[in-house]
Amino acid sequence: MEFKISRELIHELEVLIQENKEQEVFHLLKDMHYADVAEIMEELDDYGAIYVFNTLDSEKTAEILLELDEEVRIKILKSLSAKEIADELDELDTDDAADIIAELPQEKKEQVISELEDVEHAKDIVDLLRYDEDSAGGLMAKELVKVNENWNVLTCVKEMRAQAENVTRVHSIYVVDDEGRLKGRLSLKDLLTTSTKTPISEVYIPKVDYVKVDTEGVEVARIMQKYDLEAIPVVDELGRLVGRITIDDIVDVIKEEADKDYQLAAGISQDVEADDSILELTKARLPWLVLALSGSFIAVKIASTFQGAMNDFPVVFFFTPLIAAMAGNVGVQSSAIIVQGLANNSLSGSLWKRLIKELLLSLLNGLFLAVLLLIGSHFIIGVDYLVGFTVAISLVSVIILAALIGTFIPITLNRFGIDPALATGPFITTSNDIFGILIYFSIAKIILGF
Amino acid sequence: MEFKISRELIHELEVLIQENKEQEVFHLLKDMHYADVAEIMEELDDYGAIYVFNTLDSEKTAEILLELDEEVRIKILKSLSAKEIADELDELDTDDAADIIAELPQEKKEQVISELEDVEHAKDIVDLLRYDEDSAGGLMAKELVKVNENWNVLTCVKEMRAQAENVTRVHSIYVVDDEGRLKGRLSLKDLLTTSTKTPISEVYIPKVDYVKVDTEGVEVARIMQKYDLEAIPVVDELGRLVGRITIDDIVDVIKEEADKDYQLAAGISQDVEADDSILELTKARLPWLVLALSGSFIAVKIASTFQGAMNDFPVVFFFTPLIAAMAGNVGVQSSAIIVQGLANNSLSGSLWKRLIKELLLSLLNGLFLAVLLLIGSHFIIGVDYLVGFTVAISLVSVIILAALIGTFIPITLNRFGIDPALATGPFITTSNDIFGILIYFSIAKIILGF
Repeated sequence: MEFKISRELIHELEVLIQENKEQEVFHLLKDMHYADVAEIMEELDDYGAIYVFNTLDSEKTAEILLELDEEVRIKILKSLSAKEIADELDELDTDDAADIIAELPQEKKEQVISELEDVEHAKDIVDLLRYDEDSAGGLMAKELVKVNENWNVLTCVKEMRAQAENVTRVHSIYVVDDEGRLKGRLSLKDLLTTSTKTPISEVYIPKVDYVKVDTEGVEVARIMQKYDLEAIPVVDELGRLVGRITIDDIVDVIKEEADKDYQLAAGISQDVEADDSILELTKARLPWLVLALSGSFIAVKIASTFQGAMNDFPVVFFFTPLIAAMAGNVGVQSSAIIVQGLANNSLSGSLWKRLIKELLLSLLNGLFLAVLLLIGSHFIIGVDYLVGFTVAISLVSVIILAALIGTFIPITLNRFGIDPALATGPFITTSNDIFGILIYFSIAKIILGF
Repeated sequence: MEFKISRELIHELEVLIQENKEQEVFHLLKDMHYADVAEIMEELDDYGAIYVFNTLDSEKTAEILLELDEEVRIKILKSLSAKEIADELDELDTDDAADIIAELPQEKKEQVISELEDVEHAKDIVDLLRYDEDSAGGLMAKELVKVNENWNVLTCVKEMRAQAENVTRVHSIYVVDDEGRLKGRLSLKDLLTTSTKTPISEVYIPKVDYVKVDTEGVEVARIMQKYDLEAIPVVDELGRLVGRITIDDIVDVIKEEADKDYQLAAGISQDVEADDSILELTKARLPWLVLALSGSFIAVKIASTFQGAMNDFPVVFFFTPLIAAMAGNVGVQSSAIIVQGLANNSLSGSLWKRLIKELLLSLLNGLFLAVLLLIGSHFIIGVDYLVGFTVAISLVSVIILAALIGTFIPITLNRFGIDPALATGPFITTSNDIFGILIYFSIAKIILGF
């Protein structure tokens, strides 16, 4: 069961908006889930999106703001005054409010913060803004339920009813000591099924997974996925409970990270979608293409220096695309496996061991392919055995080098704190093209002698 | 805070196992999280893994079984009798038990099912096995809490205490009618904060997101991510509540799908990791390399038929790797964006509109790159303008074709129910190499005349 946007609905809305029939627009959208309204707004033009936004009430519009594509959200925010934005943010959880404020230009940011009505809320949001947006601190929300370790079940339930007003989803109730340090957790189920006079020190689970404020977002995601958690408490340097990250935010982190790695491997440098404008897509795609073109130029230059081969062994030039292609494919395979391993934190052992393993793997595969090549080039293309042999030896060498490069570079980038996914895609294919052609012609020169 | 496997710990365990010091092994591992024990078992040899497994008690080992890599799990299961496996499965939720049984060979499957002690549990598991493993039915568990719409809060809480014994995580309590049809949901928070005599018909939320048993897993993931859900009820064709899918299983679905798409784009055909054996990695990588080699052969054959060019315009052959590389890069970019759009269900509009947009985009980018090429080829390589012009025109044509192919093929595969991600990676790069070289030489022949 899912709402599906239809052309008819969008058209109907556009007509109503044009005729300024505000009541009818409201009527059409009032029962819709905020995620669906956001989808609809993304299909309307700027005027239509702002119109719809202004028609709906604050509780829903705040959630809608969160669901919108960044582009559309920025346009809506531009159309609102600082006071209006602050009103929206008063409805949101601290982590979501902080995310939205962070997108505003500096001046507007300060205006909005000053207009927030709930002072406690404002203090919490300002706190959260200090953290790096990709860290646990940047992902966490201040909304959580915590109880003191010295209370009993009855007091906890009373306290929970009071605190839970502001907390959208309660998974665990965190137990802290007098200093605010995290000691353990209680599940709602336990609270409901234990008699009320019991001191919670007899009931709560002292073992609780947590992360520190500076833990990286993808690391938090990994921990939550590994231990099947739905929420994880965040502590500061003193072990005090300062926030909580819920699984829905982590699902977004996982998705965004996967999308980013996928796009980098394809040579797309920013977060674009198929429906973005041609200009947006060009900005994301062209830089890598220029890189690839420049790299290919180097390969062409190298090939041209071996012009002597042209006279005696022109057939050597027929095979250049094959050598380049195989080098590219092997390099992409190796780097993809390494980048995935780094992302899943499943790489173990030293770099040397890994390179040796890759050497053996590529030697095995390379020899197999070289034999296929020898047979194919003799019977299908009709080259003599010497040339076939030359291409085959080059193929093995090039495959081994491509595999080693594809393994070494991502691991090394990662050691220096650079995103290893940058070393996938056109970067790898182009470098391997260059090295491949250099090696190929050098070997050919040695064997065939030109 | 996370447990990190150290070489020392593994070594210590290996020694204890060798000296058959069962008590000490138990003592070392008894307080560890099952996910961490699973990681340790993956580092030990087969004997060690089975030894550790037999040392721990049934409640933990069941969860460990779930966390293990498929390979290690299969080995453990082989070492257990049908009765022993059934004992483990009695401890697990129905969806997890069904997943494990599904991995067993047919005969052992039937033996295990017959040995299950809890008959209700067995019936539920057998039910679940009927569903396709990638559908909502295959992902769901039977464990959930449901109440009748005619009850009051007090009865619900009593009922919940009884049912919740078997339910690990309770998010919402589902409300059904006398026929078992899903009517709505109650949150635990509402139950805790409402007075007990209230009939729940006044309290429960009648609007509830759900999926049908045959909804595809990735679609369920998309819905849960879109609406920020942590659990979603599953209904059958009659609208009756038959199961529930929790967010932790969906996180795994999202991760697996992302990993699969990433690997296919790199030309890796099965689920391998960097630490798998050379044989495993070869099985996953070699097939695509053979495909790429075969395709490259076709490209070489095409290039060789234009041998006439060798005498008059040998420089044409220098540029073949450049043309092939650019065709490959553009094709990969286009297909990646389309595959991501299909996965996120964010593609709208007709195929024709999309192809026209891609045509304009690639024309724009292609012309820009062609100009760079003209300048570069004249000043850096030193070719005359006619040849430079030929290569430039070919580049634009090849880029446009590559973009169109990269857009058309994934969308068409998807329409026929084939995974569009198969059309990324070596498949696209190799086809584009072939078309690119064919177009390049054809254009060159027409313009330069050989």
